[in-house]
Amino acid sequence: MDAAQITYLVPFAGLLALAYAFTRAQWVGKQDVGTDAMAEISQAIADGARAFLRQEYRVLLIFVVVVAALLAFANAGQEGSSWMIAISFVVGAFCSALAGFIGMTVATKANVRTTQAAQTGLGPALNVAFSGGLVMGLSVVGLGVLGLGTLFIAYDTATAWDITKIIAVISGFSLGASSIALFARVGGGIYTKAADVGADLAGKVYEGIPEDDPRNPATIADNVGDNVGDVAGMGADLFESYVGSIIGTMVLGTAFLDVMAGSAYGELSAILLPLALAGVGILVSIAGSFFVKVKEGGNPQHALNIGEFGAAGLMAVLSYFIITAMLPETWSAATMTGAMFEYTSLGVFWAVVIGLVAGTAIGLITEYYTATGKGPVNSIARQSVTGSATNIISGLGVGMYSTGLPAIVLALAIIGAHEFAGLYGIAIAAVGMLSVTGIQLAVDAYGPISDNAGGIAEMAELPPEVRERTDKLDAVGNTTAAIGKGFAIGSAALTALGLFAAFMQQAGVPNIDVANPKILAGLLLGAMLPYVFSAMAMNAVGRAAADMIKEVGRQFAEIPGLREGTAKADSTRCVEISTQAAIREMIAPGLLAVIVPVVIGFIDKSMLGGLLAGVTVSGVLFAIFQSNSGGAWDNAKKTIESGFVIDGVTYGKGSDAHKASVVGDTVGDPLKDTSGPSLNILIKLIAVVALVIAPLIA
Amino acid sequence: MDAAQITYLVPFAGLLALAYAFTRAQWVGKQDVGTDAMAEISQAIADGARAFLRQEYRVLLIFVVVVAALLAFANAGQEGSSWMIAISFVVGAFCSALAGFIGMTVATKANVRTTQAAQTGLGPALNVAFSGGLVMGLSVVGLGVLGLGTLFIAYDTATAWDITKIIAVISGFSLGASSIALFARVGGGIYTKAADVGADLAGKVYEGIPEDDPRNPATIADNVGDNVGDVAGMGADLFESYVGSIIGTMVLGTAFLDVMAGSAYGELSAILLPLALAGVGILVSIAGSFFVKVKEGGNPQHALNIGEFGAAGLMAVLSYFIITAMLPETWSAATMTGAMFEYTSLGVFWAVVIGLVAGTAIGLITEYYTATGKGPVNSIARQSVTGSATNIISGLGVGMYSTGLPAIVLALAIIGAHEFAGLYGIAIAAVGMLSVTGIQLAVDAYGPISDNAGGIAEMAELPPEVRERTDKLDAVGNTTAAIGKGFAIGSAALTALGLFAAFMQQAGVPNIDVANPKILAGLLLGAMLPYVFSAMAMNAVGRAAADMIKEVGRQFAEIPGLREGTAKADSTRCVEISTQAAIREMIAPGLLAVIVPVVIGFIDKSMLGGLLAGVTVSGVLFAIFQSNSGGAWDNAKKTIESGFVIDGVTYGKGSDAHKASVVGDTVGDPLKDTSGPSLNILIKLIAVVALVIAPLIA
Repeated sequence: MDAAQITYLVPFAGLLALAYAFTRAQWVGKQDVGTDAMAEISQAIADGARAFLRQEYRVLLIFVVVVAALLAFANAGQEGSSWMIAISFVVGAFCSALAGFIGMTVATKANVRTTQAAQTGLGPALNVAFSGGLVMGLSVVGLGVLGLGTLFIAYDTATAWDITKIIAVISGFSLGASSIALFARVGGGIYTKAADVGADLAGKVYEGIPEDDPRNPATIADNVGDNVGDVAGMGADLFESYVGSIIGTMVLGTAFLDVMAGSAYGELSAILLPLALAGVGILVSIAGSFFVKVKEGGNPQHALNIGEFGAAGLMAVLSYFIITAMLPETWSAATMTGAMFEYTSLGVFWAVVIGLVAGTAIGLITEYYTATGKGPVNSIARQSVTGSATNIISGLGVGMYSTGLPAIVLALAIIGAHEFAGLYGIAIAAVGMLSVTGIQLAVDAYGPISDNAGGIAEMAELPPEVRERTDKLDAVGNTTAAIGKGFAIGSAALTALGLFAAFMQQAGVPNIDVANPKILAGLLLGAMLPYVFSAMAMNAVGRAAADMIKEVGRQFAEIPGLREGTAKADSTRCVEISTQAAIREMIAPGLLAVIVPVVIGFIDKSMLGGLLAGVTVSGVLFAIFQSNSGGAWDNAKKTIESGFVIDGVTYGKGSDAHKASVVGDTVGDPLKDTSGPSLNILIKLIAVVALVIAPLIA
Repeated sequence: MDAAQITYLVPFAGLLALAYAFTRAQWVGKQDVGTDAMAEISQAIADGARAFLRQEYRVLLIFVVVVAALLAFANAGQEGSSWMIAISFVVGAFCSALAGFIGMTVATKANVRTTQAAQTGLGPALNVAFSGGLVMGLSVVGLGVLGLGTLFIAYDTATAWDITKIIAVISGFSLGASSIALFARVGGGIYTKAADVGADLAGKVYEGIPEDDPRNPATIADNVGDNVGDVAGMGADLFESYVGSIIGTMVLGTAFLDVMAGSAYGELSAILLPLALAGVGILVSIAGSFFVKVKEGGNPQHALNIGEFGAAGLMAVLSYFIITAMLPETWSAATMTGAMFEYTSLGVFWAVVIGLVAGTAIGLITEYYTATGKGPVNSIARQSVTGSATNIISGLGVGMYSTGLPAIVLALAIIGAHEFAGLYGIAIAAVGMLSVTGIQLAVDAYGPISDNAGGIAEMAELPPEVRERTDKLDAVGNTTAAIGKGFAIGSAALTALGLFAAFMQQAGVPNIDVANPKILAGLLLGAMLPYVFSAMAMNAVGRAAADMIKEVGRQFAEIPGLREGTAKADSTRCVEISTQAAIREMIAPGLLAVIVPVVIGFIDKSMLGGLLAGVTVSGVLFAIFQSNSGGAWDNAKKTIESGFVIDGVTYGKGSDAHKASVVGDTVGDPLKDTSGPSLNILIKLIAVVALVIAPLIA
């Protein structure tokens, strides 16, 4: 099969993903929604989620138009490319937004249907929840591959440009994806925690207002937040990584144009390889999804593992055949420093395997540090006995420790992938890691759907065996969420490094020598950005939560009968507050992420290189620290709630140890769901902005 | 004046510092100790501090002998240098240990005498406290300059080696200083917080055991900790920076040997310049100390500022004359990349000024983020109203934000110093920043002395006007502590960068290109180390505090009459526990800091370069984040204690807001006094180890 044929096959893989996602969505929609009460709760959540998206997309529309105009204007001198890069940007933003819309719509349908299915058994419930997640996963990979593949074919057919230029223009797609990711992940993170923290604290600030109670007007907003942050936010995050890793590899593949032109495989082989891997990854994800089945009394974790690890294993095997079929056995090309590097198809294969293994390893390490029953979380639970201060200290300690192994895994992956296939190897390792994003994201999104399902079961007061089943699904969801978060950070790091290498090539920066003081200064400034960005995100949550608290107080004061449960709370207003706060508060950090690389880049392109290295390295570690501290605190609280025994004394719900653990959990909330994950976006967005402006500062 | 004459003058400046420190120590010793109760408390603190030093020095002796033997062995093949580098190491360790011993001995005498002097007035009290601090400051700079200067003269006279080799051998002095700093700062940090947190929590865990009460056996250990951590620990930290910055500059100065040899100034001018600046800095520090006077009703802060900023200003002026006298107006030399760089004496002068300004700026920024009455601390106080979780979240946010400006100042300093005088400029900027360490450290050490003085006044139940005066001194001490901490971090960063440049020159690493995957991996691993090191230090505090809690419980259970106040607590045992814990717990992080650079260095010297860049950049930011979060929480608590008004409601001692702020303060304790400051040591120690092994891996 030659490269041209593959080119045309790629969008079909995307279409296939979308078609299969459509059938799963249809199937989910046909399931029973249960009682009227269940339907009503579910409808309120769905309405809230849609209200958020509407608001978000309205602002996004302005943002996209402005940035597209700027891109067109900035590239005006670049003979014709100006409009094209703006179009790529708009298409990228559209694909990401559409994936988020589809995923969240189906997730808000799947939640109540999972609850209803749990009336029958564990197997049907898992099936509905996972199907809902799968729609999100396949929409992301489907639209990613379809968008990228179509743009490539369109530009290749419609223009007479050389490939290098076409790919430079396509990088706008990645910028579009990043813009949506910024809104969805940072905005979504602010939304979800403003609602969550606001709902919790309202109970503290105003006497007699219950926390976590349907009468609390912020409760629906809290449930909406799970979908906004954990489904749509995570989806946009991985969409960005997915297309970023592919584009980074395509850019680096242009270095082989001349060499490959002489081979039997065509000049485009190395450029199209990431698209081909992504396409096959879609088939593998769909295949893996068939193995996610559980019988009554079985372990859903096991079912999800078979699907996920099975898909990764199958992908590793298939990638061997794809790579050896598409690439010459050996070729050599000059690296950026001018030295010659001997590439082999086998080396590229090993780089892909390294990516797959590293992604899985980081996920499992994350699980160890944040799972109940393991040493780190138990140590936090133990320290809760002496109060909230020691609970916080030990949680911070666990988060700090947990950076060690992932850093070592990433370091080995970087060295290994480069050893096997140079900088191209690092980029293709990211593609390997992300090739099974379809099923990975399905497993991730399954978590919040199950979480919502449990909440609906609780609110609709269903029989205990239903709640038992949804609890079982939800407990697994916590683990998959931890693994997914680790995977998201790891893949963001590798994607950013791939984009970083692509930037160096496009901008003509031969080295990033930190002995050069400008680069060192860039490194330092880059390493600082995650701190300030995190602070902005955390403070935004604080401010938005304060607005929420005020609104809850107003409703209890002004709506007669609300306290007694005879009148309905105006949850729409709370949804609006969270929505507006999310949109308003993400503008400053968003601008920071966009403006800093542009300013530094025009000062000195090497300094921008230093900035990229700094923000990536520091951002990954600070994100792991924050996410894992938060995850560990959350599960330390759960550990105590399920009855934690020290020296014969049992500490359970309502104990002082429990109160201390609640403080840790609340502190961890914005860390693990807002500021931590938003750093994934920061490091990729800065890298993408650098790549997009690379031709201008070259 | 030619270079040879300066060489011989340098140790005299050190001797002068020691002589003047001796007269101040004598003077402090002659002051009245007050009542018997005061003398007894003070004696217990002094005994505890001495007990810690004795234990520490016993372990240190073994450590020093082992490392000296290793150094001798590792350098055995290097024709004669083997013993010399071991000797440098031993002398460096000895000088640092001696400075710590002198400083702490006098500080534990000055505390009670400050209390007594406060009976007379504010002026005399300030005089005693500051004089005590000045002994620490002058001992550090005196022994630093004396040790380095004497070694240089001795090697130069006794061997026929070329200067480059002599200076390589002298770098062992810096390693010795770093070893003691590790024990004093990390061990001291663990000591002080184990006692502090242990004493506080004992009250929570065992009913009826008072916190912060003389009957609590851990109280004396807590007071000892202030001296161990804040006096001796800070002293060793700055001693390390002081000699590290000088040696780093000397190493870089060897690049000018040939050029300078042709000039009228002698080949050694650039090498001896840092020593000359340090020597003059001693005179300036002594001169500045004469301006630290306050009248009754005056502001001690103002007095200290005049001394400190006056000294910095005078130093800037004098350095102009020293530099233009010692260096040729212009000269050119090849940089490591082979390009020619035009150096000027005026450029070197500006680099020194940049260092002085940057150090002051970082100190003032630190003050802004951690001082009472300013926005950041007030925001934390406000967030304490909604509970400890929001208190913690906002404190973390303040810490994260506070990294922004210092990073920008450092980035500008790096670029500016290099613009004016290349890599030599970066190193000499660190020397400039540290040249007035004498008075800077005097102001720092004044803080814990005043703190102890207040505690003694409280315990000895002196009249209110005495406590009012010591409180006034102590309040200023909190500000100077914050400024001092910022200065210590900033100087550690610049010193580490100077050593980094020196390492590159000695190891023959022409560039640290992060596009090289090994270097990138090194960068990532280096950036991770501060997290794991901090986690180790924090967990050590947790474990040691647990031991302390048990011991307090045992004493209250087994000593009849202790609870009633009729029997004396066995505070010696608590001091021993803190001491042993400190010594035991710092071994693991210490080994990490020493072994990692050696292992990475022998794998790949460029990778070690990446590691150094990563650990410096990440360590500085993580240290600022931790120190400033902790400092801000501390002062947020103090803000509430002094009556904080929001919307007309006053929140004071005993309010829920106060309880929340106590949680923040306790969390901040290990961050700001153990793990945060210990990162200063980590980044310098790793850089020094790299420099020492540089000839072996070159």
